[in-house]
Amino acid sequence: MSPITPPLAHRLDGLRSSAIRDLLKLTARADVIGLAGGLPDAELMPRDRIALAAESALADRARLQYTESAGWGPLREVLAARESARLGRPVPMAEVFVTHGSQQALSLLGEVLLDPGALVVVEDPAYVGALQVFRAAGARVVGIPLDVEGMRIDALTELLARGERPAVVHTVSNFHNPGGVTMSPARRRELAGLAERYGFWVIEDDPYGELWFDEPSPEPVAFYSPNVIRLSSASKILAPTLRAGWMVAPDAVCRGVELLKQGADLCGSALTQQITTELLADEAWLSDHVDKVRRCYGERAQALVGALRDRLGDRIVSTDATGGMFVWADFTDGVDTAGLLPRAIDQGVAYVPGSAFAVTSGYRSSMRLCFTTFDAPTLREAVDRLASAIAE
Amino acid sequence: MSPITPPLAHRLDGLRSSAIRDLLKLTARADVIGLAGGLPDAELMPRDRIALAAESALADRARLQYTESAGWGPLREVLAARESARLGRPVPMAEVFVTHGSQQALSLLGEVLLDPGALVVVEDPAYVGALQVFRAAGARVVGIPLDVEGMRIDALTELLARGERPAVVHTVSNFHNPGGVTMSPARRRELAGLAERYGFWVIEDDPYGELWFDEPSPEPVAFYSPNVIRLSSASKILAPTLRAGWMVAPDAVCRGVELLKQGADLCGSALTQQITTELLADEAWLSDHVDKVRRCYGERAQALVGALRDRLGDRIVSTDATGGMFVWADFTDGVDTAGLLPRAIDQGVAYVPGSAFAVTSGYRSSMRLCFTTFDAPTLREAVDRLASAIAE
Repeated sequence: MSPITPPLAHRLDGLRSSAIRDLLKLTARADVIGLAGGLPDAELMPRDRIALAAESALADRARLQYTESAGWGPLREVLAARESARLGRPVPMAEVFVTHGSQQALSLLGEVLLDPGALVVVEDPAYVGALQVFRAAGARVVGIPLDVEGMRIDALTELLARGERPAVVHTVSNFHNPGGVTMSPARRRELAGLAERYGFWVIEDDPYGELWFDEPSPEPVAFYSPNVIRLSSASKILAPTLRAGWMVAPDAVCRGVELLKQGADLCGSALTQQITTELLADEAWLSDHVDKVRRCYGERAQALVGALRDRLGDRIVSTDATGGMFVWADFTDGVDTAGLLPRAIDQGVAYVPGSAFAVTSGYRSSMRLCFTTFDAPTLREAVDRLASAIAE
Repeated sequence: MSPITPPLAHRLDGLRSSAIRDLLKLTARADVIGLAGGLPDAELMPRDRIALAAESALADRARLQYTESAGWGPLREVLAARESARLGRPVPMAEVFVTHGSQQALSLLGEVLLDPGALVVVEDPAYVGALQVFRAAGARVVGIPLDVEGMRIDALTELLARGERPAVVHTVSNFHNPGGVTMSPARRRELAGLAERYGFWVIEDDPYGELWFDEPSPEPVAFYSPNVIRLSSASKILAPTLRAGWMVAPDAVCRGVELLKQGADLCGSALTQQITTELLADEAWLSDHVDKVRRCYGERAQALVGALRDRLGDRIVSTDATGGMFVWADFTDGVDTAGLLPRAIDQGVAYVPGSAFAVTSGYRSSMRLCFTTFDAPTLREAVDRLASAIAE
């Protein structure tokens, strides 16, 4: 008698493979310009600086051992200093918790903050990694639409007025994935006010905030209220291999996450955490490095958005791409982007159909395009191919 | 209105800080010989070889990116080859899954295999990291005592005869933590047979199997049945900082764990996984390295056990310490080891009282001693101090 069938089949019911992961497979064909992925550009990652930091980390044998579940102390200190500057208040180390990428912070928070059946509000279209976590926690997930100023706080207010009481509201406040937009300062203040009035947590998921092209991102939502748990990551500004994410949250939340982290995987890697510390602590170097990434991504974003407008004119409305890694584009003439995809791949270009990011359904005439890993001429070529696929 | 109080307090009810972690704090005082910890010796970790492998890993920019959720391909290949040799059958890559330490494999398996209320059998005294996972999954946990041949399969058979139907039986088959014993070949075969007959999973948790002192560990329990999921780790033979654990399990289980890993933290670090690959693939080097660790730990184990027998005679019965990292000792005259601990620390020696590992209660006259990080004279001094504490 094999135990494989019943319990496992049951547990996997309703679990779907991560859309993120499955979609990455589309980018693998060499003849396809893959705008479907969501990867930062490895060519811009500071390999030499990471190698130097690895060498110096390994000079200390303590970096070979287990480290604290909450993260290596000096990394938490550097992060506390950085976050103090962003949040306009002294952030104590007890409120900084290092995770294995910010996805782990989301996942542990899902366990700490949510009972099965709890209401969670997300932005629609949604970051699919968050959808996966909240659904796995057994939450009831409701989407609130985005517009050019980010989450439609009027729609959230209406939902609250109807008597709905979310436990958590999740927002990608800067350069939304996939929506491309940034929440306006006025809406940030409003959202923080609602969190305090109605007693819910905001999870401000901010991996892209440093990747602004023209002007710095607004004050974080967490600037306005202690009810906001802020997540960020070194993956987009340094390198994903470091698996360094972090959370800024009240001490009680951090201690809850700490208990769960011990059971989940004991602790992070002291080696990659020390590398991250060295790079984040070297402010002059980091500032130059991030400037370079901003400049490069900014040029690519401009090339992609420009080509979309030149080639497709008013058949398409796209975001401005003022930062981050993605452009979101809506076809005004009802093109079915899921139906178009096989033809686009035949023409040699890939994107993610908008429907992949829908909380329930919709966005059938939308697409997400990632501009990080190709130069301007290649991005223009990608749009030419897209135009040919549409013309077919 | 702050949302901190009710939901969080509720979620943390019944969660206790990891005993492992709390106990590590006892080892921090410089004047105390800390036999309470459970750390491998950093002095024996192959720092130079890790530094070389880090350098060569970072020559490839692909190692800076995200990697596959199931682990970096070449690492899974090396592990498949090693496990094929141990299990006496070709293990395909699809049945090898890399986790962030083997604790993560336990934790994800707890989610994949267990429904709330499921029965889980563990060894008593128990590995507390496993207890934490199974309790967090809402399982009903029952302990089966150990003797010198490992888990008392007669007691498990009785439990099954009473109509109990475990979903999972967890065993630390080699050099048990904390019990120090190794399951005999006959019992391994019996356990595997019961798993097939009654349709439960065995999780064979084997971080210490390579650390044998006199003769190689017996065939794994997984050698006898496909109902056995085997876990192991590079932490004890290479270094914990690599956070490289792995699981060998049927494809369906690996795919279930993969879906959960995507939500939990997306993927591991390509950097530390490539370092691990290089070190495990270099068989001649690895064999010399592990031999050195075995020899060194073997001498320390012998010194500790010898001193216990010389100084405490028949007041104590201790395991033989034929491998692994721990000695388990029972006082025959009813000494309360929790009560003794403050006096022992005053005398300058620390251990973990047996009651910390009890599934429900018991082991009040037992203790776990870790011999990995001190030389023979220091271990003898530790036993002298222990004897003084008892004599007080």
